[in-house]
Amino acid sequence: MSTKYVYRFGKGKTDGDASMKELLGGKGSNLAEMSNLGIPVPAGFTISTEVCSAYYENDGKYEDAVKDQVAEGVEHIEEIMGAKFGDADNPLLLSVRSGAPASMPGMMDTVLNLGLNETTIQGIIKESNNERFGWDSYRRFVQMYGDVVMGMKPESKEEEDPFEIIIDKMKEDRGVENDTDLNADDLKELVTQFKDEIKKKTGQDFPTDPWEQLWGSVNAVFGSWNNQRALTYRKLNNIPAHWGTAVNVQAMVFGNMGDDCATGVAFTRDPATGEHEFYGEYLVNAQGEDVVAGIRTPQPVNEATRSDASQKTLQEIMPEPFAELEAIYKNLENHYTDMQDIEFTIQKGTLWMLQTRTGKRTAAAAVRIAVEMVGEGLIDKKTAVLRIEAEQLDQLLHPTFDPNADKKVITTGLPASPGAATGRIVFHADEAEEWSEKGEDVLLVRIETSPEDIGGMNVAKGILTARGGMTSHAAVVARGMGTCCVAGCGALKIDYKSKTMTVDGTVYKEGDWISLDGSKGEVIEGKVPTVQPELSGDFGKIMEWADEYRKIGVRTNADTPHDSTNARNFGAEGIGLCRTEHMFFEGDRIKAVREMILAEDEAGRRAALAKLLPYQREDFYGIFKAMHDLPVTIRTLDPPLHEFLPHEDESQQEMAKEMGITKEEVKAKVEALHEFNPMLGHRGCRLGITYPEITEMQARAIIEAACQLKKEGVNVLPEIMIPLIGTKAELTNQKTVVVEVAEKVQEEMGIKVDYLVGTMIEIPRAALTADLVAEEAQFFSFGTNDLTQMAFGYSRDDAGTFLKEYDKKNILPDDPFQTLDQEGVGQLIEIAIKKGRTTKPDLKIGICGEHGGDPRSVEFCHRVGMNYVSCSPFRVPIARLAAAQAAITNK
Amino acid sequence: MSTKYVYRFGKGKTDGDASMKELLGGKGSNLAEMSNLGIPVPAGFTISTEVCSAYYENDGKYEDAVKDQVAEGVEHIEEIMGAKFGDADNPLLLSVRSGAPASMPGMMDTVLNLGLNETTIQGIIKESNNERFGWDSYRRFVQMYGDVVMGMKPESKEEEDPFEIIIDKMKEDRGVENDTDLNADDLKELVTQFKDEIKKKTGQDFPTDPWEQLWGSVNAVFGSWNNQRALTYRKLNNIPAHWGTAVNVQAMVFGNMGDDCATGVAFTRDPATGEHEFYGEYLVNAQGEDVVAGIRTPQPVNEATRSDASQKTLQEIMPEPFAELEAIYKNLENHYTDMQDIEFTIQKGTLWMLQTRTGKRTAAAAVRIAVEMVGEGLIDKKTAVLRIEAEQLDQLLHPTFDPNADKKVITTGLPASPGAATGRIVFHADEAEEWSEKGEDVLLVRIETSPEDIGGMNVAKGILTARGGMTSHAAVVARGMGTCCVAGCGALKIDYKSKTMTVDGTVYKEGDWISLDGSKGEVIEGKVPTVQPELSGDFGKIMEWADEYRKIGVRTNADTPHDSTNARNFGAEGIGLCRTEHMFFEGDRIKAVREMILAEDEAGRRAALAKLLPYQREDFYGIFKAMHDLPVTIRTLDPPLHEFLPHEDESQQEMAKEMGITKEEVKAKVEALHEFNPMLGHRGCRLGITYPEITEMQARAIIEAACQLKKEGVNVLPEIMIPLIGTKAELTNQKTVVVEVAEKVQEEMGIKVDYLVGTMIEIPRAALTADLVAEEAQFFSFGTNDLTQMAFGYSRDDAGTFLKEYDKKNILPDDPFQTLDQEGVGQLIEIAIKKGRTTKPDLKIGICGEHGGDPRSVEFCHRVGMNYVSCSPFRVPIARLAAAQAAITNK
Repeated sequence: MSTKYVYRFGKGKTDGDASMKELLGGKGSNLAEMSNLGIPVPAGFTISTEVCSAYYENDGKYEDAVKDQVAEGVEHIEEIMGAKFGDADNPLLLSVRSGAPASMPGMMDTVLNLGLNETTIQGIIKESNNERFGWDSYRRFVQMYGDVVMGMKPESKEEEDPFEIIIDKMKEDRGVENDTDLNADDLKELVTQFKDEIKKKTGQDFPTDPWEQLWGSVNAVFGSWNNQRALTYRKLNNIPAHWGTAVNVQAMVFGNMGDDCATGVAFTRDPATGEHEFYGEYLVNAQGEDVVAGIRTPQPVNEATRSDASQKTLQEIMPEPFAELEAIYKNLENHYTDMQDIEFTIQKGTLWMLQTRTGKRTAAAAVRIAVEMVGEGLIDKKTAVLRIEAEQLDQLLHPTFDPNADKKVITTGLPASPGAATGRIVFHADEAEEWSEKGEDVLLVRIETSPEDIGGMNVAKGILTARGGMTSHAAVVARGMGTCCVAGCGALKIDYKSKTMTVDGTVYKEGDWISLDGSKGEVIEGKVPTVQPELSGDFGKIMEWADEYRKIGVRTNADTPHDSTNARNFGAEGIGLCRTEHMFFEGDRIKAVREMILAEDEAGRRAALAKLLPYQREDFYGIFKAMHDLPVTIRTLDPPLHEFLPHEDESQQEMAKEMGITKEEVKAKVEALHEFNPMLGHRGCRLGITYPEITEMQARAIIEAACQLKKEGVNVLPEIMIPLIGTKAELTNQKTVVVEVAEKVQEEMGIKVDYLVGTMIEIPRAALTADLVAEEAQFFSFGTNDLTQMAFGYSRDDAGTFLKEYDKKNILPDDPFQTLDQEGVGQLIEIAIKKGRTTKPDLKIGICGEHGGDPRSVEFCHRVGMNYVSCSPFRVPIARLAAAQAAITNK
Repeated sequence: MSTKYVYRFGKGKTDGDASMKELLGGKGSNLAEMSNLGIPVPAGFTISTEVCSAYYENDGKYEDAVKDQVAEGVEHIEEIMGAKFGDADNPLLLSVRSGAPASMPGMMDTVLNLGLNETTIQGIIKESNNERFGWDSYRRFVQMYGDVVMGMKPESKEEEDPFEIIIDKMKEDRGVENDTDLNADDLKELVTQFKDEIKKKTGQDFPTDPWEQLWGSVNAVFGSWNNQRALTYRKLNNIPAHWGTAVNVQAMVFGNMGDDCATGVAFTRDPATGEHEFYGEYLVNAQGEDVVAGIRTPQPVNEATRSDASQKTLQEIMPEPFAELEAIYKNLENHYTDMQDIEFTIQKGTLWMLQTRTGKRTAAAAVRIAVEMVGEGLIDKKTAVLRIEAEQLDQLLHPTFDPNADKKVITTGLPASPGAATGRIVFHADEAEEWSEKGEDVLLVRIETSPEDIGGMNVAKGILTARGGMTSHAAVVARGMGTCCVAGCGALKIDYKSKTMTVDGTVYKEGDWISLDGSKGEVIEGKVPTVQPELSGDFGKIMEWADEYRKIGVRTNADTPHDSTNARNFGAEGIGLCRTEHMFFEGDRIKAVREMILAEDEAGRRAALAKLLPYQREDFYGIFKAMHDLPVTIRTLDPPLHEFLPHEDESQQEMAKEMGITKEEVKAKVEALHEFNPMLGHRGCRLGITYPEITEMQARAIIEAACQLKKEGVNVLPEIMIPLIGTKAELTNQKTVVVEVAEKVQEEMGIKVDYLVGTMIEIPRAALTADLVAEEAQFFSFGTNDLTQMAFGYSRDDAGTFLKEYDKKNILPDDPFQTLDQEGVGQLIEIAIKKGRTTKPDLKIGICGEHGGDPRSVEFCHRVGMNYVSCSPFRVPIARLAAAQAAITNK
């Protein structure tokens, strides 16, 4: 027996099930599962993902077994649907759709109404008793097939689809406005013109043989696995290329045969808020793609989600199919124990389910659904914790618009994806990318978005569309990305040519600032101040559960009492990195810092440092107080001194004036401090070793503040961290300086405080010699930003030029500055942990690079046995959740 | 029984021997050994190095046991010498000298004639029957003790010794020129004046108690272990601080009691040439320090080494002691089986040996002595190979003056240390250091050198002195350093004040260029062109023996056919690194390179690269031809592109003109290519990945040249090396480019060549993931310069600022850019070798960083199992020898 390549589904004869996602793709396995559950799905079959791999390996050729099994699959459909593929009287029409193991909505190609030709069209017309429907179906088929299979789709976004030009001309000739106003003859004429256009452009005749049509479409779907959109999407979503897509061939059912037909998409719960309410949209007399494309504004499916009385719900106009749909959705959610995203078509009063899948949702919805499902007994707490994508929480944590701010709302659309965004208007996805690269915050404004816009949508702070509903492309994609989106904003007139959008006569140009409130659907003029979000009780619940499971601590990187408090509210269990240099820039301090840098000798430096001491002490006092009872890790001065001097001509002049010296002297000092590679230069502990008086001042400020607070009854746990250690001797040197000062200060102030002296591990050599470094260090904290820079030999400031090229050429799976490179940098970390703990078995080890807030990196930190991660305040909840998930999945 | 701290020697009662160097120091253990051999040494004892450590640990205090054992030691001397310490009639005088485990000539303090006071002086006068001798001895003692123990020595080199001022005044008063012209009364008066001066300056009386004198001197010697000179010397010679020095207390013998007395130093073979001839100098009626200090010009000891008839040899004037000396030196050389450096004194016709130690020698002498000793059956070949310091060979390999060049020899001195040096005159050691730091080649010109000058001598290209013989400080130190030296050049009048030297009325100022021929003793005006040295047959012998023992290959880093041939003559077995970028600067090429950089698109870059292709092909053709039958590793383009553009205003103007564009365009490109940290930027394989056309052109040039030569019957073994690989995917990318071009070229040219594609391992991440990289790489070559930069996080261009400070504070044992950091960087290398060979057990692995020519690093490379090292042509013999030594010692 040959390998099984084709898996049937529909009425009784179903070969697959939901567990076979890898082989049948998401869509195929779920169609089989629905079929197994007795839910009505149009009969069909799935060509497995193995065939996709073979297709690429064999240059688009198939084994005979595949051909045979596809033929058998078609017979299976014919049998169940009681129609015959290519038959003149009772023709079977088919759809051909992609279906990968991971959802890639809209990224690959689809062909509908397949099987039509000059012969079968007559059978369809006869059977539907609707000539216009017949020719419209044929017109759609030729257009889709022409685009997808025969390469008629324009390569550049600027060019218009040739078929749309023909349609527009026809409408003009006929003096009508909408496609729906064209009659059967017009559509018949369009079919002819379309075929002529294809012949003209490609030199090929449009195929009349249904089998040729079928294989052409199957090939096109497999081929679309590697189109640019799909590649981009896979990269963004970490989907491996070798998975491949399955192809689903299925009997067509029609939501557009007349007013007793409809088509719709729905979610078993509200995907934006998570509310436990069936939530969906439908269109009467339409094909499925019409709902998603956003050309006609869809209607709510049920009474509960209707927002105004003028809307006609499905519940109202087709109560019986709706009741059936309601039963099915409940069945599906219970069966899958997760919120489902479903598609359905009603053909002449009969309900057909076309798809079910786990629904994408906002972070807020994810949290609410998870907590409520635990309450409903559908899932347990562990599952609830695993259900929420840690990264997605970011959406909930970022500021919202200040409710008390003055806002000029210029118009309102659908609240398609929550969040608050302020940025400058751009009208094209590629411009969004260009502007964003230059550091601009942009909002992408489109009439509607399409899968081609994925890159621009990814970088935009927010998305605004004039057309489309809550399930439009823009809305679905934005929610997935956690990007704020206002959709279907009908009052917007967008002109791509002049790059303007007009609302009630007011014109907004490219580059103008606007703001979007994705939770309310508001479009606001200019910038709007933001405030901290209020976190829901459900959020608190999830965090509470996460903390039950997680094994490693979560600290924060914070340099001010304000940030410290903020992070503490988010659940931070201490400060893992307090950068002291940020404090050097405020107000008068920078003057003293510059005095120190300009000083000719140690005495001069000490005089300047003496001025800084009270400021630093005050800084630490505030931070220690805010973090009472929790450890606070303070890093001694890290950046090269030139960073504290002005590099612009004008600012040098200003500094000279302020310091009472000549500009030339300033210039000379800047030049003297110039380095070819400052990242590898005179910074970190190298400063403290050259100028021990700097470390002394900082140690004094820390210990004085700590002693003072202890006298006031506040519990302080300072941890002094020496940066950029590469050898044990460096740490010995700086530790000696710190301890001497600390002992002296405690004696002076007549009180003892507990403090630790530890080190960053951010130089490869420190990781490699961690056993020696640990002889001096009381704790380790991985500085993974620098460690990544040095392990890769990439300067973060410069790598942009070639990393872009690396991305295109698939040289790196991830940006190593975003997600820790476990394969390389990870080894240094594992070596350091192992060696460090060989010397001191209980050595406290954490991470304070930006990776500390990246869920995949947190998983790594858990796995290699760190004691804590430290990240920016807003990422603390993400890290808490990621740590819990790591603990659960690594059991 | 308490610990033994004091070890006696002299007639029968000898506690130590030559194996106890660590405990007794070199001098002490050899004195004991001589005593054991029955050679006459003045009785004495050694206070062990353990006491030195205790002295520093206990703040200069001693255990009672030490005091007791010293007292017993003095008794032991009294017994043998038949005199009594502090006795009025028959007083024993002592010397107190340092003696560390490693030779540190002149670095630490010495006190002679100890035990003299107003009472014992009478005994000495009576006994020697020489009043002048007595008072001269006392005068010398007070002066030495005052300087060494009582702190009379001026701190700054500018100040004159206060005692010398007094002597000068006395000579002026007496109207005499030399110290020797002062009579007993004068000297007696000097003693009084010296004591007054000491009282005036220090407030202390000069001690009269011999025991107080003894302990003062012992303390001073221990204390001198940490004086600045000693610290510098230890750092230069990698001597650990914890070793400490021993102190030798010994009966005084006098070479200055009259004309039947003499003192001298000698080598058992000629230390400059290695000739098998007893070679030494002596002075009649003098103390030992007089010979070394170079104040009187010493005479040759024997007839064989006499250079003119006016010289009086020891052989001639004191035949009996000379015969005894001859027997002893032969005994010593046979006993130690190495050339010895000996000191002797003849007191009233009796020969006393004061010291024997392994003699320092020039590289040429080392080679000759080793080879001849094998011939004499004294040592075996392995020992001969181990006897030569690999680093020292450098002296033999560097160019000598072109014998055909016009040379104006302005005067001639002693050929004290061979070699040829050209540089600018400086007169002070610290100025030598300052000038040298600024990149100037300097020659240090001194009346005579002293241990304080060690730093300046170390940086000078050559040393010229007006006074002193072949065993003067300047000569000994220069030979040790391998620095060219002309000594005792009496015609020179040096004036430190005006910073001039005058020869026969011609004045040379500071900064003037002169040249020194250390092999001939010539001082030459201006600069002299140099030629390659001729290597002796002995050198070839040693290299031949080295090659018998060595296990790893030695290649060279060479970028031109000339360097390749040169290296091949030095024994290079291939090229380990051919840098292609050096070729980009020559002649017209730079224009094409710049065209490429300025090109707007790939087509433009390809057009420019097409112009470079023939040049590169020609380069490789020449190199391959020169290295026929040997492998040649060629690295693809490595440096960032901005290095090929001018950065100065004027040159930018010039380039603009040449390229027919505006200066602004040049400026704009330079700015566009600017990077914050170019070392971590767009360079190495990152260039080839962004612009594959560059790699294509280079691969084509390499393979075309190889094919052409193969057609001509020349055997070529190209190895194409991709730099700066951090991930396997990078190598895959570049290897694909290379292989595609290579296959195409071979097809075009109709001939096949064998070639390899490998990678540099110079990025820490590449080392860590070497198992993966090895899946693609056909060889590894460690780029230890970059690997060191990234493992330490040091930019070589910038680290100078803080590494100087690190050096002062003893943070790093060695400059990691000179000697491979085995503790850290070495781990990365070991990891990479282990992982690489896990994937490919036979993977060829070498090193091409500059460490490849550093003996200690070569030893490491041998130990970790590399296949070869690669270094600059001149270092090839050094690496060959070091590799042999590594193989022998690591057996």
